[in-house]
Amino acid sequence: MSAPESWRQRLYVIIFQSDTIAGRRFDSALLVVILASLLAAFLDSVEHIHQQFGTLLSVVEWIISGLFLIEYILRLYCSPKPLRYAVSFYGLIDLLAVLPGVIALFYPDAQYLLVVRVVRLLRIFRILKLRQYLRQADFLLTALRGSRQKITVFFVSVMSLVTVFGSLMYVVEGPAHGFTSIPRSIYWAIVTLTTVGFGDITPKTPLGQAIASLVMLTGYSIIAVPTGIFSAELNNAMRQGRAQGALAKPCPACAKGHHEADAAFCSRCGNPLFPRAPTR
Amino acid sequence: MSAPESWRQRLYVIIFQSDTIAGRRFDSALLVVILASLLAAFLDSVEHIHQQFGTLLSVVEWIISGLFLIEYILRLYCSPKPLRYAVSFYGLIDLLAVLPGVIALFYPDAQYLLVVRVVRLLRIFRILKLRQYLRQADFLLTALRGSRQKITVFFVSVMSLVTVFGSLMYVVEGPAHGFTSIPRSIYWAIVTLTTVGFGDITPKTPLGQAIASLVMLTGYSIIAVPTGIFSAELNNAMRQGRAQGALAKPCPACAKGHHEADAAFCSRCGNPLFPRAPTR
Amino acid sequence: MSAPESWRQRLYVIIFQSDTIAGRRFDSALLVVILASLLAAFLDSVEHIHQQFGTLLSVVEWIISGLFLIEYILRLYCSPKPLRYAVSFYGLIDLLAVLPGVIALFYPDAQYLLVVRVVRLLRIFRILKLRQYLRQADFLLTALRGSRQKITVFFVSVMSLVTVFGSLMYVVEGPAHGFTSIPRSIYWAIVTLTTVGFGDITPKTPLGQAIASLVMLTGYSIIAVPTGIFSAELNNAMRQGRAQGALAKPCPACAKGHHEADAAFCSRCGNPLFPRAPTR
Amino acid sequence: MSAPESWRQRLYVIIFQSDTIAGRRFDSALLVVILASLLAAFLDSVEHIHQQFGTLLSVVEWIISGLFLIEYILRLYCSPKPLRYAVSFYGLIDLLAVLPGVIALFYPDAQYLLVVRVVRLLRIFRILKLRQYLRQADFLLTALRGSRQKITVFFVSVMSLVTVFGSLMYVVEGPAHGFTSIPRSIYWAIVTLTTVGFGDITPKTPLGQAIASLVMLTGYSIIAVPTGIFSAELNNAMRQGRAQGALAKPCPACAKGHHEADAAFCSRCGNPLFPRAPTR
Repeated sequence: MSAPESWRQRLYVIIFQSDTIAGRRFDSALLVVILASLLAAFLDSVEHIHQQFGTLLSVVEWIISGLFLIEYILRLYCSPKPLRYAVSFYGLIDLLAVLPGVIALFYPDAQYLLVVRVVRLLRIFRILKLRQYLRQADFLLTALRGSRQKITVFFVSVMSLVTVFGSLMYVVEGPAHGFTSIPRSIYWAIVTLTTVGFGDITPKTPLGQAIASLVMLTGYSIIAVPTGIFSAELNNAMRQGRAQGALAKPCPACAKGHHEADAAFCSRCGNPLFPRAPTR
Repeated sequence: MSAPESWRQRLYVIIFQSDTIAGRRFDSALLVVILASLLAAFLDSVEHIHQQFGTLLSVVEWIISGLFLIEYILRLYCSPKPLRYAVSFYGLIDLLAVLPGVIALFYPDAQYLLVVRVVRLLRIFRILKLRQYLRQADFLLTALRGSRQKITVFFVSVMSLVTVFGSLMYVVEGPAHGFTSIPRSIYWAIVTLTTVGFGDITPKTPLGQAIASLVMLTGYSIIAVPTGIFSAELNNAMRQGRAQGALAKPCPACAKGHHEADAAFCSRCGNPLFPRAPTR
Repeated sequence: MSAPESWRQRLYVIIFQSDTIAGRRFDSALLVVILASLLAAFLDSVEHIHQQFGTLLSVVEWIISGLFLIEYILRLYCSPKPLRYAVSFYGLIDLLAVLPGVIALFYPDAQYLLVVRVVRLLRIFRILKLRQYLRQADFLLTALRGSRQKITVFFVSVMSLVTVFGSLMYVVEGPAHGFTSIPRSIYWAIVTLTTVGFGDITPKTPLGQAIASLVMLTGYSIIAVPTGIFSAELNNAMRQGRAQGALAKPCPACAKGHHEADAAFCSRCGNPLFPRAPTR
Repeated sequence: MSAPESWRQRLYVIIFQSDTIAGRRFDSALLVVILASLLAAFLDSVEHIHQQFGTLLSVVEWIISGLFLIEYILRLYCSPKPLRYAVSFYGLIDLLAVLPGVIALFYPDAQYLLVVRVVRLLRIFRILKLRQYLRQADFLLTALRGSRQKITVFFVSVMSLVTVFGSLMYVVEGPAHGFTSIPRSIYWAIVTLTTVGFGDITPKTPLGQAIASLVMLTGYSIIAVPTGIFSAELNNAMRQGRAQGALAKPCPACAKGHHEADAAFCSRCGNPLFPRAPTR
């Protein structure tokens, strides 16, 4: 930051960074406003509150929408690279929080879209010690990425299972017992396989109950598959994370890859890790 | 592939392989047709769609059934070893997709069997990068095979549990509260133990609710067993996958080829695996 | 087995062992009879089957009860140490299969106790390759034993949670909404915490639904605890099982505990694992 | 403990310690009284028992409340540092068990608060072999502490998910199908995502059922996340517990005390940790 610190630069520090006191206060205030916005949307959806305080709550929403719009314009204004901010992860989320308010000007029904503002709560990680949480989220993402293919195999299998089981139940139980169509039967199969079990549709015939038992036992057992996959991958990601804290220079003699952080000699073969030049 | 490339060979490359552009296009087109077939079956099962578009949809199904039949005959024709294809995994699935259409000629009710075509969706793995997914599926299968016996022990125990609990509830609650027979009570025990909980049959007496609580807590706890088994086996399978390229350096004195991953000395002759430089 | 093989000894081999052909046949026949007994009990509990075939089914049960009684007496007769058999695990199960039939002579309602015969199905492991399954069951038992204390801590916590949550809901929702007493509210808390969710009792007030949400999220999260405990212990038990296959003699110089099965020298320090006597 | 052992000191040993016979007896008696208090509260909440034995049960509660008050005063009296006890973990729990009885003197409705006494059951660990259980609880707590940040990331994500899904269902299904307000829809989303599935509110429109299927599959899959996190951390905590006594042999040349578990040479000076015998 050069000497003649302009308003724009000061604004940038307050709005975009959370290291200064002013920056932290801004982020905290933002969180409070987001929560207020959500609370207003929640309360407004309750019938008897809407009838009593409807006007007040919509005024609150309009004010907050205005604030978010001003904030978004300010962010664009003070950002050194406005376009880059606009297409960044947080930039898109901020836009998402502004759009419903603008759309609701023309289509009043769009007001419920305001709840997408909940996504802005992710900013909470900026106020908490950001780095640590990001590193943890990183572990989770690494594990998820590592298990992506296994999860795909798993999901295609699950979708095939619910289609077959759903169609079977449609044939066995039929419309008379609530299985009025194949898509609805597939919905039932998903409700059952995931062990949710609403009970809005239930098998009535002995054969249907036998098939349902099979679906339930399948669902109860294969939950082990994604859990096992994710556990193994997370174990993997964390082990690699630990290994990176150790000294990762390989031994020139035996190629042992990782050593204690203060090691001078390889603990496997005893050769020096950093051979000195022959002369001297 | 020898010089005079016949039609049959060209067809073979297009239909059976997915490395050429034509082959990939064929596989993609096949997937679209399979999905269309499923969609038609789904829509036809919805009452009010059936009344409006029933004829159209059954025409679509007849056309697709015809296409699948032609495809199956072509596969048999151009395959170098038709019998081997016919009894292979994919060959049986392809037959499964053709049969319902043929059967439906004689028994119209068999049309719902058309949904077994969903199994053909497994071909999706041919279009995605096949090898990687197969390797991942391989890990999963190795883990499942390794845990087969433990899973058997687990399932026999679960089946005994639900039989005992189901019969107990039949005696305690009785037909008056919906537990009209032992098989139905066992169905209830499975619904409860797997934590599905439809709520179509529920205990009414205090004693019945106490037993139900026991069943639920049992089900809630022993879900840990298959999960733990599968996690441990998957960990195992992945570790072996990693370990196969571990310490393969031969001993300089006795030439024993493989050693423990952290070995410093040969376990057969005691000589150091990584002799230190003489001067130091 | 000495030369003059008496009837009693031959009977012992057939009834108690499963290595000979006759022994295997006996075990298989036993399984069939047990399954027939269960099936008869199941069918007899269905109202309309009972009315039609009730007499036939009870005759079948009486015959099977008689067979089991004869079998039990024969086991006691041919066993070298009858008392030891009578108090062994399988001995008690066999007694359990005989008792209900005897009791039902005096109290006809005891006939439902016949289903405890399901426990005899554990004999199925005798017919399958027994040893392997026992070893797998052993792993599971070792893991369960290792996690016993952690599981106790977990269960006491869960019981406290459901008591507190149940009582809270009794105060908040009250008898008007189905929470008619504290025990019933605790039953609801167990139904909810274990994610079974029958739906026979549900919260109606906003505060009740908020507390219910808390219970559900708690139940959804802490399922991770027994699963994690069991996974870790099973991993442990299997690692030790593998290590036992390796050479478990500790190195006399550096105390490294496990070595490759054919190791002559320690792979860590290079000293001989089996030092020769100094002279010679 | 000095020679002139006063009453106060003797009382301290009985009440606070569980090594002597008197101390164990006191702890056991305490557990019985706590259970009796809970049982009385449970029974009193059942309507028809309350009408018959209400007076008796409230007398029992008053007596037990008196006993707990006397016990709490005695603990304060005989404790060497009363204030330290009063603010300790067990001290606060003991206070919690006394307060409801005192409050109920003025507000009779507070009697239901008596069930917080269930927390006192944690004293059960004093009677069982305390140390072992504490060590196991310690493992669990270490694992929970290690996964705190990951769990926070997970919970913020889950809360965002149920808010978005809940609001979406409110828009799609609307008050006509039971989704009468956004908070109630979020309650439904939690019921569904956690796989509880009461069935008191269920989607009726095809679009709503499609979204519900998505919520269920999400809930069914992401249960793997906390399970995986906790498994990995518990594995970690147990490995560290094992590793703390691993290779503590000091280097004979430079006296560096701790080395990697598989070290053959000192990582600081390169000398062998386990020198081989000179003759061979």
